[in-house]
Formats: sequence, C-alpha cells, structure tokens
Amino acid sequence: MLKLFEYNWQVRQDWFAWCQDVSEEELLKKRTGGIGGILHTLFHVVDVEYSWLCGLQGKPEFTEPFESYASLPKVIDLAARFHEEVHPFVQSWTDEMELKTLADVSPKGEPVTFKYGEIMRHVIAHEIHHMGQLSVWSREIGKVPVTANFIRRGLY
Amino acid sequence: MLKLFEYNWQVRQDWFAWCQDVSEEELLKKRTGGIGGILHTLFHVVDVEYSWLCGLQGKPEFTEPFESYASLPKVIDLAARFHEEVHPFVQSWTDEMELKTLADVSPKGEPVTFKYGEIMRHVIAHEIHHMGQLSVWSREIGKVPVTANFIRRGLY
Repeated sequence: MLKLFEYNWQVRQDWFAWCQDVSEEELLKKRTGGIGGILHTLFHVVDVEYSWLCGLQGKPEFTEPFESYASLPKVIDLAARFHEEVHPFVQSWTDEMELKTLADVSPKGEPVTFKYGEIMRHVIAHEIHHMGQLSVWSREIGKVPVTANFIRRGLY
Repeated sequence: MLKLFEYNWQVRQDWFAWCQDVSEEELLKKRTGGIGGILHTLFHVVDVEYSWLCGLQGKPEFTEPFESYASLPKVIDLAARFHEEVHPFVQSWTDEMELKTLADVSPKGEPVTFKYGEIMRHVIAHEIHHMGQLSVWSREIGKVPVTANFIRRGLY
C-alpha cells in the first residue's frame, strides 16, 4: 500500500516542480475536464487525500475552498503541512486495518460504510486519475508532462 | 493487489460501454496528450497490461500495432482474449512474489531488473493515468466521463 502512496507523493512533487516554469495565469486558467484547472487539481488531490485519511483517523476533514489557496506557494505549503499528518498514518498501515469499517454519510445524507482498505485504494486511484488529466493540459500548453511511470523512480 | 486490477478491469468495461454511443470518427480522432486518441488509449492499456504480465510469466510480449485493431469491436475482443490469460495470474498473486526479480532490457538496450511487485504497481498506475486522459477528452466531446471512483463499485 505504502509504495503507491510514495509514488503519488513523488509524482505530486514532480508536478509542483513542473509548475515553477508555468505562469500563474496558466496554472489558474479554467480548462475542460476534471476539476477544471491545473493548480486547482493539485489542491484537490491534496485535500482529498488528507480528508479521507482524517476520516480513517476520526479527525475532522479539511473544508476550506480552493479560493483561499489559489497560488502555487500556498498549495505547496498546504501539501507539505498535510503530508506531516498523512505520512505517519500511511507508514503505520498494516494488513489488519484492511477490513476495519468506516461509517460515513452519502452525498444524499444516507448512512454508508466503507472498508479502510477500500478508502486507501480510492485515495491512490483518485490522485493517479487526476494526474492523467494534468498530462493532457500540459501538452495543450506545449509542455512535456511529468512521467507517470511507477518504474525507474527508485521506489524498489 | 487484486482489488486495483479488478477496479481497472471494471473501469475499462465502463469505458467500452461509453464508447458504444460515440462515433468511430471521434474514437479514432487524433487528440492532444497521452497516446493521442480514445480507442488507441484503450488498446494501449490492454496491450501494456498483457505485455508486462507476460514478461512476469516468461511468455512473449504482444507486439502488434494499433492499426491492426483500430475498431471498437476489435479492441473489445482483444481485451477479452488477453483477460483470459491475465486474470488467473493476477488472481494467483501472493506476497511472496513481490520481490522476485525480472530481468529486462532498457530502451537503450542495457540490462535492467525490476521487482515483480514494482511491475504490478506500474501496470495498475499506468491504466488509471490513461483513464484520466480519457476523462478530459470525454468532456471535450460533450460527454460525461466514466466515474473514476474506486468506492461504490461493489469491490468490497
């Protein structure tokens, strides 16, 4: 489980580095698909990872809007701050936690339950999916995207 | 490990169903980013999953070009045929296989090695990343994309 989180964290840092050469206008521009913008997407994956992992730890979710963090340094800072809390939880993951139950509320307000292992995989897939969207937008502005390769990253 | 493969297989089937309402022209149209087209992307994820998993089993890779399969029924057939071979291998995965070593050759022709667990995660992330690209192209042609959610798929 940890390896795919490490992959996401590495890819995310690569995208933050990629953003350094892109104008704020391009980072904030409204785009077709996904959450609708490059920096907003990076904010969104940081938010979603943190909020679900808070849920698994019985801590309150993050609920602030993107508008409060709409600059590259602010999103990078937020990611670093949340990482401090997220990393120890992911690192301490054990197979016994897989089938623990999380009680939640559906978007329609109905009670639902999830397994902890289900949420962890949801968070992993969520970020990879959104990075795929960034790769299209990257080509649209004429830049080479961050590689999505899991191999050749020193993860093994 | 199996759960993320099951997720990818389910999402892939959802995209095949999504394709049924899209003209062949749109499916084959050259697009910006990734492998450059919707059907070509679906062919590519099927090819890459199969080829890597063949590598792990000491079987020859698939080397045919997209041009030989450039219609929706052909890609769906190929995916089903490959799935017959891929599914038992993924299902029989055990933790002991994680650190087995695969000897391979780099794009530059140099010998390289990978761990089996590394390749399995590479294949998982590869498909999710490309489905993110499909989601952008889906919005570009005015269609709602397949959900990338891992939760609420009956996987647990």
